[in-house]
Amino acid sequence: MTIGIGLLGLGTVGAGVAAILARPEGRHPLVGELTLRRVAVRDLARPRPVPLAPELLSTDAEAVVDDPAVDIVVEVMGGLEPARTLILRAIAAGKPVVTANKAVIARYGEEIAAAAAARGVYVLIEAAVGGGIPIIEPLKQSLGGNRIQRVSGIINGTTNYILSRMADEGAAYAEVLADAQRLGYAEADPAADVQGGDAADKIAILAGLAYGGPVPRAGIATEGIDRLDARDVAYADQLGFVVKLLAVAEHCGHSDDGTQQLDVRVHPTLLPRQHPLAGVHGVNNAILVEGDPVGRVMFYGPGAGAGPTASAVVADILNIAGIRQVGGADAGLDPLLAASSWRRCALIDGALSRHRNYVRLRTRDEAGVIGRIGTCFGDAGVSIQSIVQFEGSGDGAEIVVITHEVQEALFRQALAAIETLAAVESVAACLRTL
Amino acid sequence: MTIGIGLLGLGTVGAGVAAILARPEGRHPLVGELTLRRVAVRDLARPRPVPLAPELLSTDAEAVVDDPAVDIVVEVMGGLEPARTLILRAIAAGKPVVTANKAVIARYGEEIAAAAAARGVYVLIEAAVGGGIPIIEPLKQSLGGNRIQRVSGIINGTTNYILSRMADEGAAYAEVLADAQRLGYAEADPAADVQGGDAADKIAILAGLAYGGPVPRAGIATEGIDRLDARDVAYADQLGFVVKLLAVAEHCGHSDDGTQQLDVRVHPTLLPRQHPLAGVHGVNNAILVEGDPVGRVMFYGPGAGAGPTASAVVADILNIAGIRQVGGADAGLDPLLAASSWRRCALIDGALSRHRNYVRLRTRDEAGVIGRIGTCFGDAGVSIQSIVQFEGSGDGAEIVVITHEVQEALFRQALAAIETLAAVESVAACLRTL
Repeated sequence: MTIGIGLLGLGTVGAGVAAILARPEGRHPLVGELTLRRVAVRDLARPRPVPLAPELLSTDAEAVVDDPAVDIVVEVMGGLEPARTLILRAIAAGKPVVTANKAVIARYGEEIAAAAAARGVYVLIEAAVGGGIPIIEPLKQSLGGNRIQRVSGIINGTTNYILSRMADEGAAYAEVLADAQRLGYAEADPAADVQGGDAADKIAILAGLAYGGPVPRAGIATEGIDRLDARDVAYADQLGFVVKLLAVAEHCGHSDDGTQQLDVRVHPTLLPRQHPLAGVHGVNNAILVEGDPVGRVMFYGPGAGAGPTASAVVADILNIAGIRQVGGADAGLDPLLAASSWRRCALIDGALSRHRNYVRLRTRDEAGVIGRIGTCFGDAGVSIQSIVQFEGSGDGAEIVVITHEVQEALFRQALAAIETLAAVESVAACLRTL
Repeated sequence: MTIGIGLLGLGTVGAGVAAILARPEGRHPLVGELTLRRVAVRDLARPRPVPLAPELLSTDAEAVVDDPAVDIVVEVMGGLEPARTLILRAIAAGKPVVTANKAVIARYGEEIAAAAAARGVYVLIEAAVGGGIPIIEPLKQSLGGNRIQRVSGIINGTTNYILSRMADEGAAYAEVLADAQRLGYAEADPAADVQGGDAADKIAILAGLAYGGPVPRAGIATEGIDRLDARDVAYADQLGFVVKLLAVAEHCGHSDDGTQQLDVRVHPTLLPRQHPLAGVHGVNNAILVEGDPVGRVMFYGPGAGAGPTASAVVADILNIAGIRQVGGADAGLDPLLAASSWRRCALIDGALSRHRNYVRLRTRDEAGVIGRIGTCFGDAGVSIQSIVQFEGSGDGAEIVVITHEVQEALFRQALAAIETLAAVESVAACLRTL
């Protein structure tokens, strides 16, 4: 049985997929049954890293989708449009879709899932999160017996590269970013990475799968690393922590109508050095899933790159090809693989979320300051794990406070009181702590 | 659609599975469609951690398998017999099987797989390796696009617990083992764990899946931690390494007839401290898969325990339940989930395998010894990364050599020459190094 593949896009990932399909030997034998039938590209004349017969290439992406020889549509062009429209077109034609496009899925996932469910086709997205790391399929197919308590991850390689170097070299953010751009680890416009939007896209997808219902992408509190001071990375280190950009989706109970209440957010976070995610360096990604009764399981690997991402795309293609052998083209959907949503999820009010916090205060260097700061926290009902004074620049002092877990509203109330203290010059930094 | 489950065994894992099935709320909705129909136990009168209707229990395991209300047979009794016979009986009745029994699969996997393929049923084994860690399903369903180069793992929690404590406390093996037995982390008869047999069972299973063909369990070179000296753990630490019991299955090329040549082995191994597996502490497990083009992906989590293992068993049950909805009971098998073998695998001659080595020599404390040792290695064509002299006990010296990667036969030849040196009292320890 030969299965025809239509590829939309022949950039880094598309070329990686084509390279796997061109050389099936040594891989799962099902790879040998996949045939690249047509490839949509923007420019026919552009040189290609993989040799492809010229008649495979087309600038007409719709024609690739519509081609009767194409059984599975693989969207690796990126961007919101025309990717979204092409995915919907494939679904309407009854063709299963594999996509690596986290932006489209994070924003139009509900529309796409509804169309796919109505038409009875799969839309698989293993490559959209975590590059080559198998995380989507395990969430769907290996953890269904669990009540998921928390999904947390380092799911943006660019920021993790920058943070790793800031920690290792004590370098400033802007300096490392510029270097990362030179080396190709960061885009010329790094906003989506460094401001946390890319990680928010991905945690929206993971949360939707882990908790069984779509999560409103726009409501995800997102803070990037673009205002992170090297000083906080250094202080964190002295206190036994590593700073990582963490994306978190946490179960916070149910409302009366059964809606799952979630706290979903992206922010720089202090991790204790022995935490499993603390050892994830450079452009690697890792996702930690905590569930009952499994406990903590972690998935680790390369979060980007042609080869890893192509591995994930081909995994999805193989899953579709494999399940075709079960019941033919008219068969029902495997509810695990199809991952239709089964409950409603809502985001909790950020003021009600609970966190441990790291706060750096710039203060005058005078007696009694720590006591007054401690009192402000105490008055708001915020209990403190540690207060440490560091030497400030100039003649002031810097005081770092790490709180125990506390409701955000109370923490903000304490900070407001602290800001009115005469001896406190500013709240210089506020980070989350695990 | 209700799916009837027959449980063989109600020990730790069986009770964990029953507990999940009894409380489906908050889990994947498919869990709610699973009904525990019958449970085979050894002793009806024994008190149970989960409340079960007494009429579910039976001491007649064959009757549980044969019960027409049982659609899926879940074997969690352990041991070779009657587990093997019952699994084959379920297959013969056309019933899919889920088992957590690594010993049966490692020894009778070929027989069971052949019977399952002939009858067209699934035998799923996620719980057999790595406890709650999704590793079997990802190997089958998420990495098929790759050529697997190496699978290496810490897949025995007991030995990792012992090694972690030896490293942290500088304690001796026998002392920590006794403590682990008191705490329930090690069995009264610890042989299967500490001599490496359990890890060998598991790597045989992983290798079979990763490379697509059964691996002869009996041919796996297996060395445990029972003769490991605390001194070597301490020296390794000083040289920047952590000692772990590693199970490794490595691709070594093909013979002319296409048979995959593998080096599969279990042994205490020095890992560089920054290696992803080096940070796996206590009873946790982790499996690192290296493939082309995915690179290195790692799966980490609790390697044993009722909850984690039950999570893996239920994952398998859900996969069978999910795929039933595709094509009904008469459908074909999904080749990924069924994981039939697709090529022949053979183990290479150990003398031809290649390793980095750690050697500790007890020598006289006299000038020129290091030079003579170095010459022996050089004469055999073994290149050395480091030679370090440590203070021995008594009046001798201890010399630790770490070699570069070398063929085992050449390394043994060098050791034989070294043993003839007058200044060398003994080869006190020989470990592998990554």
